[in-house]
Amino acid sequence: MTTAIIARPLTRDSFAAFGDVIDTDCDTHYPINAGKCERYHDLAKVEVAGPNCRVLISIFCGTPYAFPLQLSMVERHPFGSQAFMPLSPRPFLVVVCPDEPDGPGVPQAFVTAPGQGVNYHCNVWHGVLTPIGEPQNFVVVDRGGDGSNLEEFYFSHPYEIQLPEGFAA
Amino acid sequence: MTTAIIARPLTRDSFAAFGDVIDTDCDTHYPINAGKCERYHDLAKVEVAGPNCRVLISIFCGTPYAFPLQLSMVERHPFGSQAFMPLSPRPFLVVVCPDEPDGPGVPQAFVTAPGQGVNYHCNVWHGVLTPIGEPQNFVVVDRGGDGSNLEEFYFSHPYEIQLPEGFAA
Repeated sequence: MTTAIIARPLTRDSFAAFGDVIDTDCDTHYPINAGKCERYHDLAKVEVAGPNCRVLISIFCGTPYAFPLQLSMVERHPFGSQAFMPLSPRPFLVVVCPDEPDGPGVPQAFVTAPGQGVNYHCNVWHGVLTPIGEPQNFVVVDRGGDGSNLEEFYFSHPYEIQLPEGFAA
Repeated sequence: MTTAIIARPLTRDSFAAFGDVIDTDCDTHYPINAGKCERYHDLAKVEVAGPNCRVLISIFCGTPYAFPLQLSMVERHPFGSQAFMPLSPRPFLVVVCPDEPDGPGVPQAFVTAPGQGVNYHCNVWHGVLTPIGEPQNFVVVDRGGDGSNLEEFYFSHPYEIQLPEGFAA
């Protein structure tokens, strides 16, 4: 049997247990460069640990997934956070799970607003990068170094992730 | 007297002495997520130093500058690198200077291609964020922590930075 989950809009409050929302809808901003630029400051907790760790900047070019999405796997990174900022103003799907004694719990699904990115905190279960409708590029800030920084979990039954009603995929 | 400098296209080779070009025009990429995503890996050297240092992710919302640009000041960050990745596919101006015994040398000016970002290496003289023609948002990866991480230098005579011929500002 497949459990259906309807994605909801991404907000700081709903995502706080899993990571950071990276957008300009926050109070921590101030002008720089003689007022020509507004800095929305320190929006994500960047975490790196483990042997020879360092922070990486990469670009991910993702292809879209069909919806409803059959979610059979989530992953996590024990040695570091992972931030995704879209380079085009389109929504994408964000899936996270609480960590429970037997592995990831029931997934929570979010759809970003245009211009929103996310940062998964270290060791938080999450779905793979999931563009909606079109290919999408992202700048990614995550961890390099030695050691195994990827853990995958396959659900015994996939979840079905649905977009909100009226959402054009 | 004002010295005129014409900006040229940004390339890895021409920028190598100052920092990293962040784009997908590189060989260091490989598929992940069962082939659904291409990772352009480790495109910038992220540097943080000094007391209580850490890596920050911020968003900068920049307003455009008029051209030809009167460049009267450059700055540098002794404790960290600073990466700028545009969140819209528009060019922006990149100005850097070699470090010479009396301060920054003659500026070099570049215009990015759509989708290119830059990472200024630690302590490299550079101009402030300079969108062209329209406001532009950037994700910025730089350094937080204690200590003074900003040094500014004012030229005795401003330089005039011009866009390449035929470039629509």
